[in-house]
Amino acid sequence: MIGRAAAIFRVEEIIIYPDQPEKDQRKDAKLIELILSYMETPQYLRKRIFKLRPELRYVGVLPPLRTPHHPTTSRAEELRIGEYREGIVISSTKEGSRVYIGVEKPALIKGVKLPSRKRVTVKIRSLDKRIEAEVADRSEIKEYWGYKVTVSRKPLGNILKKWDLVVATSRYGISFARVKDKLAQEWKKAKSRIIVFGSPTAGLYEILEKEGLNLDEIADFVINAIPMQGVKTVRTEEAVYASLAILNVFLSNNQV
Amino acid sequence: MIGRAAAIFRVEEIIIYPDQPEKDQRKDAKLIELILSYMETPQYLRKRIFKLRPELRYVGVLPPLRTPHHPTTSRAEELRIGEYREGIVISSTKEGSRVYIGVEKPALIKGVKLPSRKRVTVKIRSLDKRIEAEVADRSEIKEYWGYKVTVSRKPLGNILKKWDLVVATSRYGISFARVKDKLAQEWKKAKSRIIVFGSPTAGLYEILEKEGLNLDEIADFVINAIPMQGVKTVRTEEAVYASLAILNVFLSNNQV
Repeated sequence: MIGRAAAIFRVEEIIIYPDQPEKDQRKDAKLIELILSYMETPQYLRKRIFKLRPELRYVGVLPPLRTPHHPTTSRAEELRIGEYREGIVISSTKEGSRVYIGVEKPALIKGVKLPSRKRVTVKIRSLDKRIEAEVADRSEIKEYWGYKVTVSRKPLGNILKKWDLVVATSRYGISFARVKDKLAQEWKKAKSRIIVFGSPTAGLYEILEKEGLNLDEIADFVINAIPMQGVKTVRTEEAVYASLAILNVFLSNNQV
Repeated sequence: MIGRAAAIFRVEEIIIYPDQPEKDQRKDAKLIELILSYMETPQYLRKRIFKLRPELRYVGVLPPLRTPHHPTTSRAEELRIGEYREGIVISSTKEGSRVYIGVEKPALIKGVKLPSRKRVTVKIRSLDKRIEAEVADRSEIKEYWGYKVTVSRKPLGNILKKWDLVVATSRYGISFARVKDKLAQEWKKAKSRIIVFGSPTAGLYEILEKEGLNLDEIADFVINAIPMQGVKTVRTEEAVYASLAILNVFLSNNQV
């Protein structure tokens, strides 16, 4: 659900943070990272990037993301010049690097020596006898191109220092409707923005309190995305869908 | 996910409609109705209302709703006068009807003869040696008190005629942000409101087209709750969370 929500609402990065700093949560964090990364990887690259391992035994039930960077075409003749594709470096020679991009022939990137097994985004340049491509400039891609997954070992308070605008979600926050104009202004101005959610076992006030911090001092906005909730507790994944849906409608430049 | 969304956003009724009128979908509709009704029933009444049957073999994985009408108390001494509880009629005598309300003693409703096994909402009136209650006036209850589930055999076009305000959701709709003020006005005026979603296999335009109808003529608003979606297709349950979250924030009188 988290992976799907991230893709639906075009999230750039998911940061997994420790919600119980007194415990060693590295194993849990790694599992979440693995599953989210697996989901984000185009189907044709999954076997090459992820080895079979017990943690991945249930990946068959994961819904596909169906993002533009997960193309369903698998034949070289269906490629178009200018198309972007995710790939993995197979080998590098004097001529350049050969990259597997999910079709029967690799793409050649001339004049580079990329490390083997590196994941790269390529742009198709020519489609004659062989496929030639270049390493893509990701900032050029107009479509949504997947999310990055990061595990942070630092406590949440530290993570939040790096960001220009911190929007926290909490049932004790202010209804989004009441702060939307101010938030929209700050959102536009900010160079980097993070939306923060509590964990399945604790809300943000509680998590930061354990670090000796107060959410109100750390976040620029604490919003309640579900005013008057009909249930006692809202699950993290439910809060993620509700919050991202609201922010997407009102804060992106996409009021089309 | 649908049951949880309904409870989180205080939905009064869920109507299940046939999306493929050319098929007999009664069995599927009944299964969805059964599971949603099971979720909506307080835990202590489930065994009395639903017999063990194969369709319910996976209900163990359903998340609890945790609504006010699913109390976790189960002892008569924890009841309070004025409290509302869902119950089921056990027997009726000259004295009145005895209702099981999830505690060790039944509640007596004097002077009525309710049919056995009927589900009723009661209000506790006195708590002496015995528990006395009255049939509650549901409109009096201020808290969210669960949803009703209805299966409609009529095609969607027919269902939508009954409603004062029809808000349809579609990726081809207008971004909610662009119609929110107008929609808020109509929402306040309307005596009855319905929010319509497509099905897992077809969107609303497509479903109504098969009935010879045009969504734009039938719906008062066709909104896109997820403008610029990063994925090719949004699942019904994802659209439900996104749409209800947005409508809850902007249309309810709860901008607290």
